[in-house]
Amino acid sequence: MSGRTARRRVLRITLPDSGRPGDTAARADFLAGEEPLGIRVDGTALTMTMRTPGDDLELAAGFLVSEAVVRSQADIAEIKLCDGTSCGHGDDHDMGNIADVTLAAGVTIGPGARRNFLTTSACGVCGKASIADICVLPQAPLAADPARFAPEMLATLPDRLRDAQRVFSRTGGLHAAGLFTADGELIAIREDVGRHNAVDKVVGWALLDDRLPLAGRALLVSGRASFELVQKAVLAGVPLLAAVSAPSSLAVDLAEEAGLTLVGFLRGRSMNVYTGADRLSA
Amino acid sequence: MSGRTARRRVLRITLPDSGRPGDTAARADFLAGEEPLGIRVDGTALTMTMRTPGDDLELAAGFLVSEAVVRSQADIAEIKLCDGTSCGHGDDHDMGNIADVTLAAGVTIGPGARRNFLTTSACGVCGKASIADICVLPQAPLAADPARFAPEMLATLPDRLRDAQRVFSRTGGLHAAGLFTADGELIAIREDVGRHNAVDKVVGWALLDDRLPLAGRALLVSGRASFELVQKAVLAGVPLLAAVSAPSSLAVDLAEEAGLTLVGFLRGRSMNVYTGADRLSA
Repeated sequence: MSGRTARRRVLRITLPDSGRPGDTAARADFLAGEEPLGIRVDGTALTMTMRTPGDDLELAAGFLVSEAVVRSQADIAEIKLCDGTSCGHGDDHDMGNIADVTLAAGVTIGPGARRNFLTTSACGVCGKASIADICVLPQAPLAADPARFAPEMLATLPDRLRDAQRVFSRTGGLHAAGLFTADGELIAIREDVGRHNAVDKVVGWALLDDRLPLAGRALLVSGRASFELVQKAVLAGVPLLAAVSAPSSLAVDLAEEAGLTLVGFLRGRSMNVYTGADRLSA
Repeated sequence: MSGRTARRRVLRITLPDSGRPGDTAARADFLAGEEPLGIRVDGTALTMTMRTPGDDLELAAGFLVSEAVVRSQADIAEIKLCDGTSCGHGDDHDMGNIADVTLAAGVTIGPGARRNFLTTSACGVCGKASIADICVLPQAPLAADPARFAPEMLATLPDRLRDAQRVFSRTGGLHAAGLFTADGELIAIREDVGRHNAVDKVVGWALLDDRLPLAGRALLVSGRASFELVQKAVLAGVPLLAAVSAPSSLAVDLAEEAGLTLVGFLRGRSMNVYTGADRLSA
């Protein structure tokens, strides 16, 4: 059923070019898998995300960190994938596409859960463009994290991430998120058709391994840095987020407010530092 | 307030390379704007999306097409941006970040609205992986669309799209969606930090201009083709979706089921045709 990659038939068309004849050939191609994953908390459906199968429990756990529902491993009493019978569904349901989370006693999905917050009519999206209105910031600001990162080390990260992307080379269709030490050692890498899912998988892995907050670490994403990715980094407590492409304006604003070091266009021998440049050692 | 681009200060670090000295310089940089847009339907908050400001009414209208709430211009009685007083909010709210939609008499957000559908516990995300469980297909299948597209024409589209992306050259951070005739003439282009928003803006433009369904047209997106993008194309009635990068497995499956021609890796002189190859003329 679920797979990180899937074979599909494809017609490859190459047009004539500079005297070279064209060609049309049918062949099998590997594509990035994409399937829905439902996330259920305490018996209630919370959300559904389209994701690349694999690391599903980590994805669900990381999503709950990003929604400010949980902050540590202890906040989750149990997390499992539905096996078709254990979750109260009938036989007509496939296994594996629902992550079922039971929160620890005393942990609830309160008004702090962003999803709820955003869908009420008083949600602040029309508000005074205060970032605080549309996101949940942690109690302890990242600014207190004394970690330092050398630009020379940062410049090595994209290659390290790509080298670790075995699946990528097969499909060309997967985003990646990698977690590194301040010395540039790769700690964890996760992939997904969605950049946000790849980050949630890394954060969820850290949560389930009781490693949150991710003080002193650097997080690298393969594409752009959106507001949402900065928020995920902040809630995971990681002091540096680097992206291969551009950040958005709001990503920079939130990073500034939260004390996150935000690096963009990390390519070859250069990079743009948008916030928190004091955290870069010479 | 709202802007397609925003200026932010950036520290550009270039490391020493092959004898060339390094350099660190502060400068102003243009970033893609990203701000929340709330979408309200008949007075009730429906959703919030992070988007690049601009074409907001088109984005809201296109979103409602993608959610199968509306199918033609006649389904919308009124659509406007909140001006801070007209929508019942207080003075503490900025203008421009809520799209307020009034549906025509008889048009309602029923169980067909995907958002609602997905967040119920019986939502089918755990279902038999039937695509019909997680999406809404239109009554008339695209397979009936007799349009034909020449591969030589398709190969010209990415350059046409890039040429039209004035904003892109300033920020490097925007996705684009372009709508073309079968002869390769660009009809509409919209940009956004989110690929799905760029497509919603194009579809919303078409809806508000009473051009739906988009029979005989081709839609090009600048990145990957996800399940969600295929769904948007299908609901807009466009018979061909092309992407510069890879599709996902589920994108191919839905395209096959819906009769959509799906082209991926449209680069230079070659392309991959995943579904509906009979629609490509020799």
